[in-house]
Amino acid sequence: MSIRIGVIGTGWIGEQHVHRLTSTVSGAEVAAVSDIDLDRAAEVAEAAGARRVDSAEKLIADSEVDAVVIASWGPVHAEQVLACVEAGKPVFCEKPLTTDAADARRIMDAEQAFGRRLVQVGFMRRYDAGYRRLKEVLDSGAVGKPLMAHCVHRNKSIREHYTTEMAARDTAVHEVDALRWLLGEEFVSAQTVLPRKTTKRFPHLQDPQIFLFETASGARVDVEVFVNCQYGYDIQCEIVGEEGAVRLPDPAAPAVRRAGRSSVPVLPEFGDRFEAAFDVELQEWVDRIRNGEALTGPSAWDGYAATMVTDAAVQSLHSGAIIPIDMGDRPELYA
Amino acid sequence: MSIRIGVIGTGWIGEQHVHRLTSTVSGAEVAAVSDIDLDRAAEVAEAAGARRVDSAEKLIADSEVDAVVIASWGPVHAEQVLACVEAGKPVFCEKPLTTDAADARRIMDAEQAFGRRLVQVGFMRRYDAGYRRLKEVLDSGAVGKPLMAHCVHRNKSIREHYTTEMAARDTAVHEVDALRWLLGEEFVSAQTVLPRKTTKRFPHLQDPQIFLFETASGARVDVEVFVNCQYGYDIQCEIVGEEGAVRLPDPAAPAVRRAGRSSVPVLPEFGDRFEAAFDVELQEWVDRIRNGEALTGPSAWDGYAATMVTDAAVQSLHSGAIIPIDMGDRPELYA
Amino acid sequence: MSIRIGVIGTGWIGEQHVHRLTSTVSGAEVAAVSDIDLDRAAEVAEAAGARRVDSAEKLIADSEVDAVVIASWGPVHAEQVLACVEAGKPVFCEKPLTTDAADARRIMDAEQAFGRRLVQVGFMRRYDAGYRRLKEVLDSGAVGKPLMAHCVHRNKSIREHYTTEMAARDTAVHEVDALRWLLGEEFVSAQTVLPRKTTKRFPHLQDPQIFLFETASGARVDVEVFVNCQYGYDIQCEIVGEEGAVRLPDPAAPAVRRAGRSSVPVLPEFGDRFEAAFDVELQEWVDRIRNGEALTGPSAWDGYAATMVTDAAVQSLHSGAIIPIDMGDRPELYA
Amino acid sequence: MSIRIGVIGTGWIGEQHVHRLTSTVSGAEVAAVSDIDLDRAAEVAEAAGARRVDSAEKLIADSEVDAVVIASWGPVHAEQVLACVEAGKPVFCEKPLTTDAADARRIMDAEQAFGRRLVQVGFMRRYDAGYRRLKEVLDSGAVGKPLMAHCVHRNKSIREHYTTEMAARDTAVHEVDALRWLLGEEFVSAQTVLPRKTTKRFPHLQDPQIFLFETASGARVDVEVFVNCQYGYDIQCEIVGEEGAVRLPDPAAPAVRRAGRSSVPVLPEFGDRFEAAFDVELQEWVDRIRNGEALTGPSAWDGYAATMVTDAAVQSLHSGAIIPIDMGDRPELYA
Repeated sequence: MSIRIGVIGTGWIGEQHVHRLTSTVSGAEVAAVSDIDLDRAAEVAEAAGARRVDSAEKLIADSEVDAVVIASWGPVHAEQVLACVEAGKPVFCEKPLTTDAADARRIMDAEQAFGRRLVQVGFMRRYDAGYRRLKEVLDSGAVGKPLMAHCVHRNKSIREHYTTEMAARDTAVHEVDALRWLLGEEFVSAQTVLPRKTTKRFPHLQDPQIFLFETASGARVDVEVFVNCQYGYDIQCEIVGEEGAVRLPDPAAPAVRRAGRSSVPVLPEFGDRFEAAFDVELQEWVDRIRNGEALTGPSAWDGYAATMVTDAAVQSLHSGAIIPIDMGDRPELYA
Repeated sequence: MSIRIGVIGTGWIGEQHVHRLTSTVSGAEVAAVSDIDLDRAAEVAEAAGARRVDSAEKLIADSEVDAVVIASWGPVHAEQVLACVEAGKPVFCEKPLTTDAADARRIMDAEQAFGRRLVQVGFMRRYDAGYRRLKEVLDSGAVGKPLMAHCVHRNKSIREHYTTEMAARDTAVHEVDALRWLLGEEFVSAQTVLPRKTTKRFPHLQDPQIFLFETASGARVDVEVFVNCQYGYDIQCEIVGEEGAVRLPDPAAPAVRRAGRSSVPVLPEFGDRFEAAFDVELQEWVDRIRNGEALTGPSAWDGYAATMVTDAAVQSLHSGAIIPIDMGDRPELYA
Repeated sequence: MSIRIGVIGTGWIGEQHVHRLTSTVSGAEVAAVSDIDLDRAAEVAEAAGARRVDSAEKLIADSEVDAVVIASWGPVHAEQVLACVEAGKPVFCEKPLTTDAADARRIMDAEQAFGRRLVQVGFMRRYDAGYRRLKEVLDSGAVGKPLMAHCVHRNKSIREHYTTEMAARDTAVHEVDALRWLLGEEFVSAQTVLPRKTTKRFPHLQDPQIFLFETASGARVDVEVFVNCQYGYDIQCEIVGEEGAVRLPDPAAPAVRRAGRSSVPVLPEFGDRFEAAFDVELQEWVDRIRNGEALTGPSAWDGYAATMVTDAAVQSLHSGAIIPIDMGDRPELYA
Repeated sequence: MSIRIGVIGTGWIGEQHVHRLTSTVSGAEVAAVSDIDLDRAAEVAEAAGARRVDSAEKLIADSEVDAVVIASWGPVHAEQVLACVEAGKPVFCEKPLTTDAADARRIMDAEQAFGRRLVQVGFMRRYDAGYRRLKEVLDSGAVGKPLMAHCVHRNKSIREHYTTEMAARDTAVHEVDALRWLLGEEFVSAQTVLPRKTTKRFPHLQDPQIFLFETASGARVDVEVFVNCQYGYDIQCEIVGEEGAVRLPDPAAPAVRRAGRSSVPVLPEFGDRFEAAFDVELQEWVDRIRNGEALTGPSAWDGYAATMVTDAAVQSLHSGAIIPIDMGDRPELYA
């Protein structure tokens, strides 16, 4: 009765998902694991009591795999997701859905041809307890119709391979999805503002960056991304409506009074901050598959929209201009 | 490979545990359910895809039951736990372990005769993320050796069957276990102080009550129990050490600014407050059984100690005196 | 038009008051200063542009002194206050009003004979913005009728001359006055509870101590006094009523996120915590005298009541018993 | 020995200042009062025990006026301040110093000709305890060199005469001065971003607005101005440096737990928020004059700079462009 899941990709997040599906999620088992590094795949598979499969293609086609989790390298997501859709198998794909908007459109076309949603994208913030309660407050009308959102995304520090464009594509993309979901509308323009660079990190990197977005209704969203803030992993979000304002809570932590200060810890890493959200995200995905229910998590359209918005932010990064965003019409399947 | 669990008792907490073991906990399945109300047992069993068994005795003896969860009426816990120990099956027993200290000693004797721990008592606070982080702070030495603890346990309101003695036995018992665990020592005296009664509830009930405990090292613990505080479910705990103080965090919640106030919600019910702790509690219990590891959760000794302390508090409630508590020596199995 | 004030005593608080009356308070001037240390008196007087007077008696009798501030050693307060009352001059006396309840009764007799209030006692917490807002909340009925109060008084550390009895007489006395004022009723019993002593300070000192008080209506007040808490000066107060609870705010301070923690400073010393309260206390006292209005600050009765309560706490410290407190009837002048 | 002050203008803030100088500030007296409404001037003068003077010119020239407070209508500030400088009298001028940058330059020329500072501008935030502690944190280096500042200025609601341009000139101007002071550098560009208008207020008004400023070093400052936020007066400021972030504290207020929520009040009006800052501002101004010390508060240059920045913000409001700001060199007198 457990859903048999194949996991493609055994990097950090892939291995985490294998462990999660084995030890935390109820109603699932990991049946197969693949990775371009065959030894690594074998190692992770063995620890989970699963089979190593030689390629992503074989894993997707495997008759003992009911559903697929994709945690491979971004550029191969598009073809792997398409293969899953063609095989009629539910697929959970880590972000980005695709690295290119045209690929995302192909996936949506395939999914529409299939006739119902098979694809879910790994925007885990929608499963975070704090964001969910924030959305409940917004939906209750307690603060009125949203006018502005102020967001902050800070990492303690980031490794050298991180590039200036990744601030939009890999980091702000989470705020983009979260705010599209919270506000319930699309973004229509993007502007990237460049503060003086921090001296605490690599000279090649423009860090911090500030992104300004406008929504279809005229609400404004600003996002500070500062990936070498030195002090910890810190996610903030305040939404201001016509009648009030609401703020994402910090994680609960014991306050300590000692040596002249009253303090709470700031979490060091994003894994700590969103670990429970990852658990809920996969549990709900598994539950829906088990119950034969339609997926309701972030869709291929959401993956496409996020790419469109972060593409515009990167354009603005280079040109300094305000970039309009035209997503086209949203297909009915994603209404 | 899943642990097959039998659940005795299908009241509120029993049904919750059945649902939890079915839908949230990984590596477990509910194999059998019993209740003195046979229809109710059948109903809960069916919803979980489990068998209804006609009695607790049969359920404990059932060869397809690997481990037992007891959520029956307190007075029958002792005999059911003993039967599990005699059958050599791991048992998770909701509090109270027993309603009588002598019964708890019989259980400890049986468990020692068996030679290793089979019994875990349902003090879920040890699994709450906030309490765990509080304990980490204490164990880190950041606030020095504890001298005092100030605790508050408030319920919004309580039903009419709740009696004055239940403030100690059913409510403060959670603080007693949590503080014994946090401080790592036993309580040696209890005093109950009676404030003026709230007029917002039944005249038969002495509410609030304040309990004062002394530990073996001379630390002092005070516990306010106020079960009709009107405003919500509120658990507070501050521990003061020689070098600082640390406070249990409130649950994280979005702060809303509207209509002249900035506010966060207080949870209405204890289920909301400790739901995640119940999940972790049973997941860890299942994991240890699956892995063949010794149980480390609250033991029969912890159940016994809690009963000894709350017995003393009830004595003080009636006499007004400070009541010494002598638990005797702790058997090596529970060191 | 300025009120001409004579200040008796030029220790820490006396000098502070001279400076305050000279530089912060509007409508007052320091006309005369006395101290048993004549050189010290001369020095402080000169800095304030005031005259040095050779004795407290002469200062009180001085025709160019309209009102007197007493900041001398506690044991001489009684005779100095009496001399002021006999001279018909308003007097502000630092706590304690007297070191003995009989002396306080003599002062009240003299004041009643005079026919209106001339004496104000230096319980500055009634002038602290936080305590005042706390009282507004209580008086608004927002939390219902008070049932319990939980108070904490912590000092970073204390000098060697501080004795075990001073925890009641010099420290908890502030909470005693504040709570009598907040709750609007008298205390009828006191119990002192002795936790294990901190090892961080002098062996002669019992530190911390917990005081339990009962009020006339049956409300319960507990006060933790811990004068070597190491981390800072920390005053806490939560009052629990039949419909809610309200907490004294910590001083506003900027929250800093750095090096893995989000923190606010805890003030190091009580002067910092209550500096603004001292300013308001003297400004209001001066304003009332200038306007010919009756004094409304802490009265001789309040000074007497505080002494009666702390006497009982000291008795309990030695005997371990719960000590009843009988203040007798409150004279009409202090209604 | 008291400084004799003449107050020009008896509107809300002028009357407040008269009261403040009479009742709160030590070492000052109000000698003369003028207003274009002679009856109003007479009324305010009488209440303060001061003379009514028939015109601002006469008041400034009055031989019994040592220093002048200007609280008249903005457009007449320039000539009144110039007259004070020409008379060699210290002057405290409410913002704006001038409504035109050229006038501000004339004032600076006159002050430089005089040879020392006589002019202080009423930017009271520099005297707010919270802002001062924020600046102490910045100056301590605890958060490293500033990179970004996020500011929020919300009023509950605003009267009908308030225009779209006033968001920059009358409201954001306070953030402009505060941030120039906190960061210790000038602003070099301004951009105004226009969210959808709130429907809760007059259609003629663009509310909210977001201002984006760049400083000489490349730091970025964003300021949300929302003058009809409905819920209260709310000032927020977070400064992000290379090693951490620091946040302006909210005013201290008692937290109340009742009816399912834990809440603190948000202040309704700006007067409540900055009342203590106004007191300190005038006390320090008076103290410096009494002591013959140079003024250190906001200078004519600060008034000029604020006008230059808000002029640019208004230009951007109309054009949508990013507007560069060139203030020219800062004269040595204002170094």
